Amino acid sequence: MSSAAPDAPAIDELAAELGPDVVTTAPGVMDRYRRDWAQDEHAGMPLAVVRAENAEQVQAAVRWAAANRVPVVPRGAGTGLSGGSTAVEQGLVISTERMRSVSIDAAARVAIVEPGALNAEVKAAAAEAGLWYPPDPASYEICSIGGNLATNAGGLCCVKYGVTTDYVLGLDVVLPDGSRVRLGGTQVKDVAGLSLLKLFVGSEGTLGVITRAILRLVPQQAEKATLVATFADIRTAADAVVGMCAQIRPSMLEFMDGPSINLIEDYLHAGLDREAGAMLIAQSDAPGPARSFEIAIMEKVCADLGALECFVTDDPDEGELFVAARRASFPAMERAGSLMLEDVGVAVPLLPDLVTGIAAIAERTGTMIPVVAHAGDGNTHPNIIYDPGRPGAREAAQQAFDQVMALAISLNGTITGEHGVGRLKKAALPDQLGPEVMALSTKIKDAVDPQGIMNPGAVL
Amino acid sequence: MSSAAPDAPAIDELAAELGPDVVTTAPGVMDRYRRDWAQDEHAGMPLAVVRAENAEQVQAAVRWAAANRVPVVPRGAGTGLSGGSTAVEQGLVISTERMRSVSIDAAARVAIVEPGALNAEVKAAAAEAGLWYPPDPASYEICSIGGNLATNAGGLCCVKYGVTTDYVLGLDVVLPDGSRVRLGGTQVKDVAGLSLLKLFVGSEGTLGVITRAILRLVPQQAEKATLVATFADIRTAADAVVGMCAQIRPSMLEFMDGPSINLIEDYLHAGLDREAGAMLIAQSDAPGPARSFEIAIMEKVCADLGALECFVTDDPDEGELFVAARRASFPAMERAGSLMLEDVGVAVPLLPDLVTGIAAIAERTGTMIPVVAHAGDGNTHPNIIYDPGRPGAREAAQQAFDQVMALAISLNGTITGEHGVGRLKKAALPDQLGPEVMALSTKIKDAVDPQGIMNPGAVL
Repeated sequence: MSSAAPDAPAIDELAAELGPDVVTTAPGVMDRYRRDWAQDEHAGMPLAVVRAENAEQVQAAVRWAAANRVPVVPRGAGTGLSGGSTAVEQGLVISTERMRSVSIDAAARVAIVEPGALNAEVKAAAAEAGLWYPPDPASYEICSIGGNLATNAGGLCCVKYGVTTDYVLGLDVVLPDGSRVRLGGTQVKDVAGLSLLKLFVGSEGTLGVITRAILRLVPQQAEKATLVATFADIRTAADAVVGMCAQIRPSMLEFMDGPSINLIEDYLHAGLDREAGAMLIAQSDAPGPARSFEIAIMEKVCADLGALECFVTDDPDEGELFVAARRASFPAMERAGSLMLEDVGVAVPLLPDLVTGIAAIAERTGTMIPVVAHAGDGNTHPNIIYDPGRPGAREAAQQAFDQVMALAISLNGTITGEHGVGRLKKAALPDQLGPEVMALSTKIKDAVDPQGIMNPGAVL
Repeated sequence: MSSAAPDAPAIDELAAELGPDVVTTAPGVMDRYRRDWAQDEHAGMPLAVVRAENAEQVQAAVRWAAANRVPVVPRGAGTGLSGGSTAVEQGLVISTERMRSVSIDAAARVAIVEPGALNAEVKAAAAEAGLWYPPDPASYEICSIGGNLATNAGGLCCVKYGVTTDYVLGLDVVLPDGSRVRLGGTQVKDVAGLSLLKLFVGSEGTLGVITRAILRLVPQQAEKATLVATFADIRTAADAVVGMCAQIRPSMLEFMDGPSINLIEDYLHAGLDREAGAMLIAQSDAPGPARSFEIAIMEKVCADLGALECFVTDDPDEGELFVAARRASFPAMERAGSLMLEDVGVAVPLLPDLVTGIAAIAERTGTMIPVVAHAGDGNTHPNIIYDPGRPGAREAAQQAFDQVMALAISLNGTITGEHGVGRLKKAALPDQLGPEVMALSTKIKDAVDPQGIMNPGAVL
């Protein structure tokens, strides 16, 4: 332990060790590292930002922080939506943005990556080898693998291809004492010892800093065929989701409710049906001739349920237009006001109850809450829209935010399907998990991080 | 804490609470619960066997054990191959064999199961609803879901469909203090809090007793087409595996080396090519017309690499004959002597190095070690065959067993891909994981089980 007093940590020591380019204390630079996309208003001013260039520098920084009992906030690309990398007052932000190497072992079908590499960079490197890294958060072009690992990020293809944790074969992690462990490897199957690998995935920086990952790759995705169907109401659309998923595994199955369709139509003028109660966009990437085979199954499910309209195309570009409409939901909603982004999930058959309940919350709180969803997984993004200029609107939106989480919990669902708990959803976590699971989580956190220096204030 | 001395635990109390049919101390009955298939010669005589009928009885037993500091060994169907449920002297065996309920929620596509349910029972119940539970250990007809969860069991379909942990959405676990936590639920995506769910999967009874699981189901598997190819040597066969998996995802991709082919041929007289250095059995379950499409890709890979012979069939029954030959490897080898079953894994491109190295170990130790493998995952089963009547043979086999694990570790692989560490592989675990990971594992074990009563002597 250092002899420095807790209120005057010897940051100069660390700066001298790693150099001023790596350890910055310039307020103008540090300001860019205080918040992620959640724009947490409670962000503190860090003591320093460490822009590490390799695992050894991460270790040096954590070792220093441990010796001085200084909080550490690990940070990737800063695209998190739950405040998981909000800076802590007088803490150390360790940014992995400079640790970006990606190498592909095509024969072993793995990518060996540093945490700062963007998801899109991993996808691109894999594609060069004829391979594919499936996880695809909407922000894949700008989010980092480190952040994806920290939140166990999902995306649109999860419905068939699973989430980040399903692709993690190995991790290097700098623990809260500055030591570094190597978990897993390039072998696909490995049950030797406790599943520490899986424990670190989704731990949102509360257990350590990931400095390297070995990610499983699969053969490149085949061409996709697309189906778009509209329905009179949400329940019928949800029934279609259940019906499709009982027979095949669509490679994408997205949902928009009526209010979302209208906001997107306001924005894009794409000719979407404003009268529809709900819309599904589904894709098949089945090999070769099986694409049309799967699309026909989905089409029949929609027809049997009395879909208002059902359009199918084998043309990837035409299909992409509809996926683009789905992706436009965020800018379309941003135009309509300030946003609070939700990420609640339930079992698929409960989607109608969730969406209906959300409409009631919107009514009650005087907010607008259009819902888009990764429907095949029951993971929804109700986006609370409010007018920041109207007195009381932000408070009403916060109420809606809390009530949507409470609703998901009452439906035995989750407050977060893919964004993480971070700081914004921390207060609701005990309501979902209950005191026993919270206590168990805390025991594990304390065992790994007895000083409590890793991302304090997040999750637990 | 009880006032009973550690050497005289008040088992009568527990027997009175749960009844004599649940708590048995009859040596004749208990003897059946002392060993799993690993036939661990160091098995102890338990104080009692608790054949629990529900989670509350498991809790009562663990609470009693905690109060009396009595070791607890959880036990499923007893088909484990690593001694994970070897009875501990003066411990409590908690068998879940009577907890067998299986219910299916077809709309949510989940099975809600008790741990004693057999894997095959879950598959059958899912099939009735038109759904499928993929994990398929070779012992699926007689192994329990609880054991599958405890070892994170794999099987033949893992190459495309993943392992047990990929299908676990929820778990109820009785912790070492007798409390019970409920983790996860029916929602497919959930990142709220630490991934405790995944930590318990594969923990081999060292952290608690699983009393209920919610398992993800997928649409029923389509018909399968089969390819069988023989190669002059192991390396070419491994190259074929790499080549196939770079383009498609076979639903099965099994390997046998020359010695395995010969032993199976001795046993089955099926007309297998005794001269072949290696054989692959691959399947495609791609939807509809894509089956032939995928088989053609695999066939071309084999032809391009100069396969000795390549046979394909769309007929499921004909294909099943070859899979049956692969499954016959165990009885075929059992006929040849006593067996020690290995389960080592490496990255797929290292398969030739592993198999060649194993041949050298066989030579050196005077044992026979035919190798069958889930080749697409790099997970091999070298089966050490020895003559128990020959002096020194068992010791030589044990040497071979240890050397095969050491070889896998030297190839950056794993000592166990799907069987678990249990007691038989415990000594080799630190060689694979290293002191830092062992220390971290111990910290987590101690945090969850501070008295160390859960399955002591296994894994850690």
